[in-house]
Amino acid sequence: MLIHSAAQLLTLAGGPQRGSLLGTLGIIQDGAVLVQDGRITAVGRTVDLLTAYPHEPQLDADGRVLIPGLVDPHTHLVWAGDRAAEFEMRIQGKNYMEIMAAGGGIAATMNATRNTSLDELIAETRKRAEILFRNGTTTLEAKTGYGLNTESEIRQLAALLALDDKGPLEIVPTFMGAHAVPPEFKGNTDGYVALVCEEMLPAVKEWCLANAGGRPLPFVDVFCEAGVFDLAQTRHIFTVAQGLGFPLKVHADEFENLGAASLAAEMDAASADHLVKTSFEDIHRLAQSETVAVSLPPTPFGLADGQYTPAQEIIASDGLLAIASDINPGPAWCESMQFVIALACRYLRLTPAQAIAAATINAAAAIQRADRIGSIEVGKQADLLLLAVDDYRHLGYRFGGNLVDVVIKRGQVFDFSLRFLKPVH
Amino acid sequence: MLIHSAAQLLTLAGGPQRGSLLGTLGIIQDGAVLVQDGRITAVGRTVDLLTAYPHEPQLDADGRVLIPGLVDPHTHLVWAGDRAAEFEMRIQGKNYMEIMAAGGGIAATMNATRNTSLDELIAETRKRAEILFRNGTTTLEAKTGYGLNTESEIRQLAALLALDDKGPLEIVPTFMGAHAVPPEFKGNTDGYVALVCEEMLPAVKEWCLANAGGRPLPFVDVFCEAGVFDLAQTRHIFTVAQGLGFPLKVHADEFENLGAASLAAEMDAASADHLVKTSFEDIHRLAQSETVAVSLPPTPFGLADGQYTPAQEIIASDGLLAIASDINPGPAWCESMQFVIALACRYLRLTPAQAIAAATINAAAAIQRADRIGSIEVGKQADLLLLAVDDYRHLGYRFGGNLVDVVIKRGQVFDFSLRFLKPVH
Repeated sequence: MLIHSAAQLLTLAGGPQRGSLLGTLGIIQDGAVLVQDGRITAVGRTVDLLTAYPHEPQLDADGRVLIPGLVDPHTHLVWAGDRAAEFEMRIQGKNYMEIMAAGGGIAATMNATRNTSLDELIAETRKRAEILFRNGTTTLEAKTGYGLNTESEIRQLAALLALDDKGPLEIVPTFMGAHAVPPEFKGNTDGYVALVCEEMLPAVKEWCLANAGGRPLPFVDVFCEAGVFDLAQTRHIFTVAQGLGFPLKVHADEFENLGAASLAAEMDAASADHLVKTSFEDIHRLAQSETVAVSLPPTPFGLADGQYTPAQEIIASDGLLAIASDINPGPAWCESMQFVIALACRYLRLTPAQAIAAATINAAAAIQRADRIGSIEVGKQADLLLLAVDDYRHLGYRFGGNLVDVVIKRGQVFDFSLRFLKPVH
Repeated sequence: MLIHSAAQLLTLAGGPQRGSLLGTLGIIQDGAVLVQDGRITAVGRTVDLLTAYPHEPQLDADGRVLIPGLVDPHTHLVWAGDRAAEFEMRIQGKNYMEIMAAGGGIAATMNATRNTSLDELIAETRKRAEILFRNGTTTLEAKTGYGLNTESEIRQLAALLALDDKGPLEIVPTFMGAHAVPPEFKGNTDGYVALVCEEMLPAVKEWCLANAGGRPLPFVDVFCEAGVFDLAQTRHIFTVAQGLGFPLKVHADEFENLGAASLAAEMDAASADHLVKTSFEDIHRLAQSETVAVSLPPTPFGLADGQYTPAQEIIASDGLLAIASDINPGPAWCESMQFVIALACRYLRLTPAQAIAAATINAAAAIQRADRIGSIEVGKQADLLLLAVDDYRHLGYRFGGNLVDVVIKRGQVFDFSLRFLKPVH
């Protein structure tokens, strides 16, 4: 299939974009891309590709913008139930402790998730996956962490793999048994850390080797935060995980700086995520590593909290910056990476070009898939979006809506460019 | 047509909601509504209406939430071109004066709009109208104000009436010749005010009487702001407009408080809009009038500016509060009233119930249409939404996406509940 006549084709070619290189779009005016067997086999100008491949079936972009599929490198996509009542309490001024006392917070989602069968978990999550896909996310990372015991954590993992198998949304799994301390270990965080290290991690590895169909091992993520897991506990989990061959990610510096960003750099984690209270020293250490700094602007937005990732300092330090939705049933039930881009433009002060790079090639790097997705280059998977605009900057500039007309995943075309205004009755 | 089996049917019955009454949803569990000839002819429980009307064609809400169509009482929907480059300049730290010097701001949109034919203006605006409609807006107010001369202003008005005629989105027009001072009157605001009063207002009235097909006269709106039109100029325009029979609206207190909110109350304007720098005294005067306070949270959001309407004070003063998108080609190209609700929950601290009332029955009051739209009551126009959720609080709680499955406008059904994941190639 030859997709041609894109007003702007954003290639994002050349690999992950550090520091001032962020926002290098590699735009081809009147661009075209050849897709064969789900992969990109040629990229160039329409006139050249139409001449070279005259007999390919055609998809006319008709002056629209063609970009790589959006990659969401940090989500908590798989959960049961919702926390709408807690949202209302928060608006009415109830604090975190009152919400917890009313059975809210992660514990509420943990209870619902533990009590939900695998099939129901898949069905609930699939609805969310459809919405994200329709809004342009073609690949996302998704974490466990609402089971908090071995059996329920593996059930979340099984749900993620089943959803990925079914497609078209591609899911890269992360095991996050260390998302919170479950009630049965209240006051005994070290005991829970021992369970994670001695029982869960080996069990997850064994389960994956038997059931993950040759996929690489999932990431292991830890919520390193005051009142959750401290730096020593995080380091301990990471050491065990790394010994078993798991790649690493970390929740760092959301509310307090415990040093997790530097630990991520030291231990060669794929990414350090959140990064709100991150110090200059941590930013500098991250920038000197291959660890991607992942900002999650929907979380402070969801909390109406003014503090965002110091993205400009990350760029100035020559770091690798990506952005993600953090979609979860708490403060950030954010259903669109386009909206994450709009937030990043306003609150991280990224240009639309920078935000797009942070949501494609750099987001792919944050999940160690930059060799396969995140740009429009020969040999890469054909994950593409046609936007209903002729200038890519409308991503970011406009907000609240959905500019995606067509999603192409591994060469399969999903056309959402409805003729909206025909009534059915 | 009998729409039945709504998990929650939000009637919003009983008229506009003042002060602490805001958020009175009038929920019917397992609700149903009978629609005949585009109007609502019965509202009640599914079991009762199925028994009473067994032979009506049925639309099964299937456990979804049914609410009135969203009403957007403040938009600048009709314009030509875009200002994406200006958005980028703003992110890069350019200030308002530099943007103006580069040909940006309202003047840029004015130039594009003046140089666009009626047919093109209709076509460009219709694309935006489709997006808003698909996101659940069934009626909106829309202002002229990018023409700034008699001929171009009337062309904008003609575009709005043509779009309203075509439907299904219903458009309530406002004449806003006093949106800015055009370059040909630079330094001579009084001269432009004289043109508005002596030439434009009579011409608009005459044009409407000849071309508006019996519609009521449009609203007249003035941007009362430092550096634009002062309070005396606003009062003068209002006095002339009111003398000609036009109902009034005003842009008040966005950047400075010039007293326009109190003027709106004094002159019985339908609404006073923006209301960021509004004083306690102004809030109190508004609350003692029938003038609706309209908050536009997408504008401070778009500017990443922390200052929002003091909504809690408006509620505490027993005022009438509505919310609107302010969609415009500058800082607030906001394409969804659902997102306005999400902002209002976070930055005005409205509960989802309050935000929904502010976006339906109170928004209808802000455009003097509360007798006809904004609630699900017998005799009202059948403007309804089916949301893909079973708890209305997901409006506000979730953000960035679109929860609307089905839009019903004057009884016509537009079903957007796609089976997303079937590829077309």
